[in-house]
Amino acid sequence: MSTELQKQFETLLPAIEAEMRAVLHATTPTDDSFYGMIHYHMGWADEQLRPLVVKSGKNIRPVLCLLICQAAGGNWEQAVPAAAAIEILHNFSLVHDDIEDISPTRRGRPTVWTLWGKPLAINTGDAMFALAHLALARLADRGVDATRVVRALRRFDETCVQLTQGQHADMSFETRSEVGVDEYIEMITGKTAVLISLCAELGALVAGCDDETIAHYATFGRNIGLAFQVIDDILGIWGDEALIGKSTSTDITTKKKTLPVLYGLERSQSLRQLYVETEETDEQFVAQVTELLTENGADVFANQRAEFYSQTAVSHLEAAQPTGPGYTALNQLVEMLLNRNH
Amino acid sequence: MSTELQKQFETLLPAIEAEMRAVLHATTPTDDSFYGMIHYHMGWADEQLRPLVVKSGKNIRPVLCLLICQAAGGNWEQAVPAAAAIEILHNFSLVHDDIEDISPTRRGRPTVWTLWGKPLAINTGDAMFALAHLALARLADRGVDATRVVRALRRFDETCVQLTQGQHADMSFETRSEVGVDEYIEMITGKTAVLISLCAELGALVAGCDDETIAHYATFGRNIGLAFQVIDDILGIWGDEALIGKSTSTDITTKKKTLPVLYGLERSQSLRQLYVETEETDEQFVAQVTELLTENGADVFANQRAEFYSQTAVSHLEAAQPTGPGYTALNQLVEMLLNRNH
Repeated sequence: MSTELQKQFETLLPAIEAEMRAVLHATTPTDDSFYGMIHYHMGWADEQLRPLVVKSGKNIRPVLCLLICQAAGGNWEQAVPAAAAIEILHNFSLVHDDIEDISPTRRGRPTVWTLWGKPLAINTGDAMFALAHLALARLADRGVDATRVVRALRRFDETCVQLTQGQHADMSFETRSEVGVDEYIEMITGKTAVLISLCAELGALVAGCDDETIAHYATFGRNIGLAFQVIDDILGIWGDEALIGKSTSTDITTKKKTLPVLYGLERSQSLRQLYVETEETDEQFVAQVTELLTENGADVFANQRAEFYSQTAVSHLEAAQPTGPGYTALNQLVEMLLNRNH
Repeated sequence: MSTELQKQFETLLPAIEAEMRAVLHATTPTDDSFYGMIHYHMGWADEQLRPLVVKSGKNIRPVLCLLICQAAGGNWEQAVPAAAAIEILHNFSLVHDDIEDISPTRRGRPTVWTLWGKPLAINTGDAMFALAHLALARLADRGVDATRVVRALRRFDETCVQLTQGQHADMSFETRSEVGVDEYIEMITGKTAVLISLCAELGALVAGCDDETIAHYATFGRNIGLAFQVIDDILGIWGDEALIGKSTSTDITTKKKTLPVLYGLERSQSLRQLYVETEETDEQFVAQVTELLTENGADVFANQRAEFYSQTAVSHLEAAQPTGPGYTALNQLVEMLLNRNH
């Protein structure tokens, strides 16, 4: 990690965690199972609800929010409630996603529903959703004026509605035979990009930017999110190939409908046939699919898309006229997110 | 229903429904399954998402909110977003409760999860939770100042946390052998009373009351909620007896832990033994349990509690100094809720 970004992470992460702990009643250990299940999910407690330190998520979303607040000329400490709210929201959605996807583990640990059952896990998620809102409302305690707090809360919930729309679309795609590239982009916009857009938007809102600048930051965030997801899709197929010389893609063995695959399916009758006819998705299947995708230019298409979203993101970031060390770190973060190979 | 209350219901219900439809994208029919599932749950669409009119819930919560706004000297139209938000919140909780309780039907119709599966139903509930917040934020569009809107949103989410705590306690009671009367009161406070308290509080907040008056209305609401629930518990055991001369209580056949039962279990060894030993909970079991409860004064105790909560409610209502036709209707509503026999 580059120097300025590293320095920022070291300053910002403790502030974000302290704020989350305050909101989630985790400043002292508790034997209350209501908050205990939340602490377990956050990686702050073990299965017996004893204090624990595990490697948490990367916290890129809340850090992005605080970097943008700085780059937009604001005081990042004022934006900490927004950063904490977004991270709690993200964690709430993971609790429910794990139930919806019947995922037994997350980050190498049993999920909340595997330990305590689905009814209590659904309820734990609901509690975290409410607590995420209370986190955001704490903006009012850091001197953000009430009109901006209301605006932040509205944008927060509009984004939550989009997230659930994205999740709804994703689940219904699984049972549909044909999904278009445009529908897919709409779905990942809801599932991924709008939340990153919200990070950027709230950072700029707290910094006191005008509407036009806020919109530039939000558009930057949405496009970074899209670029990130499309790069993920590319690496999901050709990532191993670059590293170990052949593709062992689980995205292909599970027949996941990602951007390159949907593009390929739209263009190649052979690929459609292969997807319908193959039940045993072995190494040979992966090799055949990868070849057909490359043959039909799915990699070129996906790379062009990623490039397009990256450039759109960067041009909106520049239009917002960011400054200072926050901007330096922001550039390094963007570089890190977009130029990765795994 | 008494005249003023009847008149108020006729005026207020259409305004509440119009607001909910606006927030839930239900002003025109839709074939979008995301909003369609919400419309189905609200009773506005059938299983094929075609428009439908079914008998909705009693809407007592949102009406209470608007009556209090009037009685506190406010303009009820300003409080409509709060009333709609509370009713949407209540409906969200029903969607998740039905999954948690594995309930196949509600109001005589299949539940959302029975029709579309648990994953989509969890997500539908989450969407309604976010939309309930957007409903409440519309207070800002009706001239309520931003500081009060932020306060309303905070109280809304603090209440949501209490609701999930109540639900958590209720679920954990099922697997516990001993539950105390005080724990039970705390649980029903969370599950029922805090939401009615919120109705009252938000009505008074929008009316522009001072903190002391708002607190009186909130305490009124909490105690009305507690009285209502305890009366429900009493009717669940002795209600049939009053009507048909003998008890056929399903609360007893299902061994539900309600206030009179917990009181009886604390006091009677014979009752504890009967509850542990009996597997076949037939008519004879109901008769034996009812007799033991009466013998140990569980009905007297529960009636005293209901009376205490009712009187506390009324004294706080009077302390808030309500006036006008809103107050008249409010009195009639309280009378209707507390003097019922089924």
